[in-house]
Amino acid sequence: MQASSPNHASDTTATATLTRFIAQCRWEDVPQHVRHEAKRSLMNFFAVALAPAQDRTLDIALRTYGRFSANERATVIGRSARVDPLTAAALNAMAANVYDFDDTHHPTIIHPTAPVAPALFALAEQQPMDGSALLLAFILGVETECRVGNAMSPEHYARGWHITSTCGVFGSAMAAGKHLGLDAQALTWAMATAAVQAGGLVETLGTMAKSVSVGNAARNGLLAALLAADGFDGPPQALEGERGYLRVAADRPDIAPLAQDLGSRWELMNNTYKPYPCGVVLNPVIEACLNLARHPQLIRLGAAAIERITLIGHPLLRQRTDRPGIQTGRQSQVSAQHAVPVALVRGEAGLTAFSDEAVQDPILRALGARVRFEDDASYSVDAVEVQVQFAGGDLLVEHIDAARGSLAQPLTDADLEAKLRTLCLHGRSGVNADQLIEAVWQLDTTDDAASVIRLAGAPEART
Amino acid sequence: MQASSPNHASDTTATATLTRFIAQCRWEDVPQHVRHEAKRSLMNFFAVALAPAQDRTLDIALRTYGRFSANERATVIGRSARVDPLTAAALNAMAANVYDFDDTHHPTIIHPTAPVAPALFALAEQQPMDGSALLLAFILGVETECRVGNAMSPEHYARGWHITSTCGVFGSAMAAGKHLGLDAQALTWAMATAAVQAGGLVETLGTMAKSVSVGNAARNGLLAALLAADGFDGPPQALEGERGYLRVAADRPDIAPLAQDLGSRWELMNNTYKPYPCGVVLNPVIEACLNLARHPQLIRLGAAAIERITLIGHPLLRQRTDRPGIQTGRQSQVSAQHAVPVALVRGEAGLTAFSDEAVQDPILRALGARVRFEDDASYSVDAVEVQVQFAGGDLLVEHIDAARGSLAQPLTDADLEAKLRTLCLHGRSGVNADQLIEAVWQLDTTDDAASVIRLAGAPEART
Repeated sequence: MQASSPNHASDTTATATLTRFIAQCRWEDVPQHVRHEAKRSLMNFFAVALAPAQDRTLDIALRTYGRFSANERATVIGRSARVDPLTAAALNAMAANVYDFDDTHHPTIIHPTAPVAPALFALAEQQPMDGSALLLAFILGVETECRVGNAMSPEHYARGWHITSTCGVFGSAMAAGKHLGLDAQALTWAMATAAVQAGGLVETLGTMAKSVSVGNAARNGLLAALLAADGFDGPPQALEGERGYLRVAADRPDIAPLAQDLGSRWELMNNTYKPYPCGVVLNPVIEACLNLARHPQLIRLGAAAIERITLIGHPLLRQRTDRPGIQTGRQSQVSAQHAVPVALVRGEAGLTAFSDEAVQDPILRALGARVRFEDDASYSVDAVEVQVQFAGGDLLVEHIDAARGSLAQPLTDADLEAKLRTLCLHGRSGVNADQLIEAVWQLDTTDDAASVIRLAGAPEART
Repeated sequence: MQASSPNHASDTTATATLTRFIAQCRWEDVPQHVRHEAKRSLMNFFAVALAPAQDRTLDIALRTYGRFSANERATVIGRSARVDPLTAAALNAMAANVYDFDDTHHPTIIHPTAPVAPALFALAEQQPMDGSALLLAFILGVETECRVGNAMSPEHYARGWHITSTCGVFGSAMAAGKHLGLDAQALTWAMATAAVQAGGLVETLGTMAKSVSVGNAARNGLLAALLAADGFDGPPQALEGERGYLRVAADRPDIAPLAQDLGSRWELMNNTYKPYPCGVVLNPVIEACLNLARHPQLIRLGAAAIERITLIGHPLLRQRTDRPGIQTGRQSQVSAQHAVPVALVRGEAGLTAFSDEAVQDPILRALGARVRFEDDASYSVDAVEVQVQFAGGDLLVEHIDAARGSLAQPLTDADLEAKLRTLCLHGRSGVNADQLIEAVWQLDTTDDAASVIRLAGAPEART
């Protein structure tokens, strides 16, 4: 009864191939453009995680989780509290994702950084690692979670699983396992202990409950790696086995993407960053409306003179964002009837444009009632035409082919820096944005990766 | 952006009905036979949780989890360590389930007590509750998890979800929420935060990884209740919603059982307790073989003279337990080729009969090779006929209609006491079994429920 079976991985399974790659991959094996994309992802991560420094979801979580936190050595981004590494991993993942302003992997729609980076930074505060080691582990964690997502997409998310949470725990486990120096066998065990902890539901989007599963992805992946490091075993095929996670959580998984082209195709290169805190299908609409807001004719005639605003775009635009009469800031993030007027009238589309206060603005509500959709399946989801019809007969037209924030028009490094500065101000944590930005760009050259996250704690938290 | 939507539950949904019942149900509303069954379930719980006091799975978990434990005030059953309540909930749930010797709810095959009782005892060590309050919360927690299981059975488990883990988190959340005095709205939020944490895979049975999801069920349900008590919200229909847990984790859930006959039908009355640490389909086989072992003719002729042993039973018996050539004690728990000879030759079927050592015994292996199955669908799974054919022509037949441990032949109170004494000795923790047994039977009359679990800690842990 005492001992479990050996549970050794065979050499030929997808999990065995993937874990062997993770165990063996070196910093030298990662191309320069992938390394740079990792730093861009972390820049975006710190930006979005700094924004909710005064947010109630995080306040409650910190209070409740904090009651059970030992060894308070890890930083909570934007806060003065220090907590244990598992708790820090959870809270920082929640912070990065709570406003749905974090990064997006195509085509899975996983937000890849939130579950992975917090586990690594929390580990780095316990046992020193240099910056390139953290970046390498991060890249491999993202690689893992996105491949698990690829194997189950699009069915898994469409069924109702919150794919960032469910796949994120595998990424966190492999990232943490890489840093801990686990061999392929131990990584396979960690994959199994991650698999039994995968959870999260689309049903909870827009509520606080969602944040718990995102936090768990980071926390429980780290826990899985720590357990595996101590010999805690699991079955060899927790992913692709007969009752493994892929088949249980998707009717028709495709096992092949798990282990194909490892080392030559990098999932991080399919990562994108949002310019606005909205569903990505709204990106071209908002960009068009911000351009129109600066148009002399609109400034001269005034928004009150607008009779009708027509959005011509891919049917998904209408399906996901035709939401009149919304009541909360959170709902406004996926409402064209709010995004269009707030961008046209206020000329901005940041977090405050999608607040509870903003959705109650009668001017915006009146203008939002004049928004119409016209489906055109020939448009990509990154494109739109916005037609503004004035009462006097004037017509303004703005066409966007590839919105900023898409794979074709990625945010620039400068855009990401600006996003961090803006969201750092929004959070009012007192964090020095310039120092943090510099530290992220220099991460591959530092021998103390933890120094970066220490710059992201509220100043009074520094030790 | 700051606030979430109110997420109030409507009065008419299944979740609303269930949470209202939980919030309003009083000790006076629970019939005497249900109260007594709750104490029987707890007796069995302490029995099985005391057994692995020297077990390696628990050793590793305690070491790793313990590094992140604060406020060390909660008891770990059979151990001298004290940990925080979330960690205690996890470790004690693991302990109760690690040998698969815990209770079984019909027809879901949920092990109901392991996820629920540990959360309550951990809470009781933080804030005093009397014994009847703990029993009431326990009964309602079991009611919840089994009803969630009923709504998804048999598909959910057959698909590969480890149903004790996935449904257990709902039971733990409602039990803890009841003790915390949550109203129906807050219980609904806790249900949502439980739903995003539901996980666990049949693929991991027989490995350490399984224990993590069982521990999570207890721990994360408690966490969900504590968060809800602090205003952490969730959607109103995390269970039965369009993308709620039931529809995501089962293709064809039946929502009705969630809220039918509340207060008149009690799921705890469908709970059973194992006499042997084996798959329940082996119960009648082992009982028959233990009877045969005492038969004068077998004693006279000797087991070596046996030519063939035929098991006539329901096809499930063969499907689940026809496992020759097994290598580990854990595998032997579901192997008729081991269970039959060990019961016949050694005349016992406790934990040591299903150890790594026992499966290597050449006498047992030789006799196991002579086991044959004969399907007969007219048998219930609680029945069997065992025919022992001797080389000299003699034939011994033993027929069991309803095995001990089935709903028709439940273990007696005295059986459960004996089980606790035996497993307490097996664990060598130094716990005084007689004191603990007395305390469980008196639980409904004590004003300090925590006193019971303190008796289950290793003596040096008492404060």
